[in-house]
Amino acid sequence: MRVVTMLTDFGLSDSYVAQMKGVITDLCPTARIFDISHMVRRHDILSGAFLLETAVPFFPNNSIHLGVVDPGVGADRLPIVVKAKTATLLGPDNGLLERAARRLGVIAVYKIDVAELELGEVSSTFHGRDVFAKTTGMLASGLRAEDVGPPVKGLAKLQLQEAEVKGGILECRILHIDTFGNLITNAHNAMLRRLTSQGLVPQTVKSSSRSRRVRIAKTYSDARLRKLVVLEGSQGYVEVAAREADADNMLHVRTREKLRILFSR
Amino acid sequence: MRVVTMLTDFGLSDSYVAQMKGVITDLCPTARIFDISHMVRRHDILSGAFLLETAVPFFPNNSIHLGVVDPGVGADRLPIVVKAKTATLLGPDNGLLERAARRLGVIAVYKIDVAELELGEVSSTFHGRDVFAKTTGMLASGLRAEDVGPPVKGLAKLQLQEAEVKGGILECRILHIDTFGNLITNAHNAMLRRLTSQGLVPQTVKSSSRSRRVRIAKTYSDARLRKLVVLEGSQGYVEVAAREADADNMLHVRTREKLRILFSR
Amino acid sequence: MRVVTMLTDFGLSDSYVAQMKGVITDLCPTARIFDISHMVRRHDILSGAFLLETAVPFFPNNSIHLGVVDPGVGADRLPIVVKAKTATLLGPDNGLLERAARRLGVIAVYKIDVAELELGEVSSTFHGRDVFAKTTGMLASGLRAEDVGPPVKGLAKLQLQEAEVKGGILECRILHIDTFGNLITNAHNAMLRRLTSQGLVPQTVKSSSRSRRVRIAKTYSDARLRKLVVLEGSQGYVEVAAREADADNMLHVRTREKLRILFSR
Repeated sequence: MRVVTMLTDFGLSDSYVAQMKGVITDLCPTARIFDISHMVRRHDILSGAFLLETAVPFFPNNSIHLGVVDPGVGADRLPIVVKAKTATLLGPDNGLLERAARRLGVIAVYKIDVAELELGEVSSTFHGRDVFAKTTGMLASGLRAEDVGPPVKGLAKLQLQEAEVKGGILECRILHIDTFGNLITNAHNAMLRRLTSQGLVPQTVKSSSRSRRVRIAKTYSDARLRKLVVLEGSQGYVEVAAREADADNMLHVRTREKLRILFSR
Repeated sequence: MRVVTMLTDFGLSDSYVAQMKGVITDLCPTARIFDISHMVRRHDILSGAFLLETAVPFFPNNSIHLGVVDPGVGADRLPIVVKAKTATLLGPDNGLLERAARRLGVIAVYKIDVAELELGEVSSTFHGRDVFAKTTGMLASGLRAEDVGPPVKGLAKLQLQEAEVKGGILECRILHIDTFGNLITNAHNAMLRRLTSQGLVPQTVKSSSRSRRVRIAKTYSDARLRKLVVLEGSQGYVEVAAREADADNMLHVRTREKLRILFSR
Repeated sequence: MRVVTMLTDFGLSDSYVAQMKGVITDLCPTARIFDISHMVRRHDILSGAFLLETAVPFFPNNSIHLGVVDPGVGADRLPIVVKAKTATLLGPDNGLLERAARRLGVIAVYKIDVAELELGEVSSTFHGRDVFAKTTGMLASGLRAEDVGPPVKGLAKLQLQEAEVKGGILECRILHIDTFGNLITNAHNAMLRRLTSQGLVPQTVKSSSRSRRVRIAKTYSDARLRKLVVLEGSQGYVEVAAREADADNMLHVRTREKLRILFSR
């Protein structure tokens, strides 16, 4: 029995995801397939990378994680398999897999050799099914990562400025906006913990166009209605949230954008 | 093999549900997990309770039903496990589980003792994963309900006025509005059957702000376009519905609100 | 182990689909259930038929495919089981199953005899659960198609004008509009390939109310932003698509409607 997880931006209205599951199940009837999400915002690789990164560590060792958010399907990005310490990942090499792979510990990266694997006819628009699901099914039924094709160097990485603290200001980027409008930043919880342990308290959060009062909180229900809070999030990253309101609307922001959180005593 | 069902208001865009499934699967690789729904309206405990109540009776005996609609996460409601006659339920003790538990026959209720179970680090905002999914995985792999923590008395119950008939009027509350705009009330089908068997016919349905003509129907397709009907519903409760129109908009109502259905000969 | 797939227009907000899965699992604990889609547009039988048709060929031989898009529930369409060469299908005989069944090779069609099968109480509004899921569970645990009830002749077929080429014009119908706004027509890819191999190039696409320039493309990323392209689709049919725009809005069309694609040298 092998666990397979899937993340795509294909949505749930069409049969695209089902076709992929059919292909995997046909090649490996005992595979147990879990959806991470298929509602990634169309072509939002960063959001997809975040969702993969935060989900894969919870699945059993030796799982296979398939990610397809692929604006360049049919163009020249490589289809790859990543052999990691505790799992295998595959998808387009466009930055989608890198954060998750780094968390799991990259051992080697291989290019999927479509001809060598005899994947058969490959449509030009649906590599999710014809390349990635097929390879997933083969991996699930015993193919080794090193046998999908030649090793390649490195892994495409999304450019994103790291979070940092300078002069009482935590400057960070928005990795993901969740369904409740909570902003998940790329600042690790430890950064917030370090600041507050020095007696510093968050006062204001600024986006490029908005400035708002903010308080520290331990949980969402600590917030007053429609007021912003900063808290250590369950995903390992600092979050900016509002109770029964969307923080993204209040700060007028989207993924990738910068937030500056101002602290003082 | 153990069946696990899940109901949350976490939506399908994020990886929260997948993280929970990862935790369960890691602890119990043979668990078979089914989604009841993750699209419960944010914090709508009554709607969640209705969806649980109507789904759990159809799953095999000995299933584990996990429900998380938890506006008070991090506050003081208890995390509980309900040992019922034919299944086990768990979730926050805020009224979410009570209707389903009553249907399945409550034997005992236990508080989940996070320290005793050695659940490890618990985030303050995601008990769904760190408390409930972990406990689910442990129950699925053999832990007994009575071993999760000390017994507690009773089970939080949602306050909702019971449906009743007086003077030819069926007065009831809306438990749930389904995706087609059908209003599912808390009046059992038997109440409608008793009225019609006395030769009484529904004439009018009134909400707090609207009054509409209504006819009795056996099935949705009996209704005339955009006209309201009253019928015995498939969920065991009387429904008010419209064909190719949303009954909730026509009556301007939401869950919990009162409906009065006037009958005459 | 038996694979079961499900397609409905019940959505994901309610517990209707879960109730069906509970019924199937209770009757056949080892069934492996896959969702094709539950987001079929309410009562859109053609779209449902397309989604079934394109998904079922990818699942293992001997699968059971359950489809419920059933505006006439409680009315007089027959509940049927289709024995096909490589799989079994079931659902209402309203055209939903015919395209998929034809792909898989129809051997015989049987009417589900509710009394004979002792299906128990059948609600008048939810045959998906009380007739079709129950029969699915019984088929999955060994009941033969020929034992569900008497054979019936033929299978209801959706009326839809076939695609054809005349005088350099490819005239076709829209089978489905996918979540990206791509229009999937009923013209097989081979028709487009034949035209282009003769040196003909698509110039214009016309709906009943719009006329737009169009180019040929191999993949979606070949298109210029917000410009229409014609391409061989991954579903076996010619598609009209736009990059980062919805082709359905640009041509103001819905499923079933006619498209005319004008070619010249």
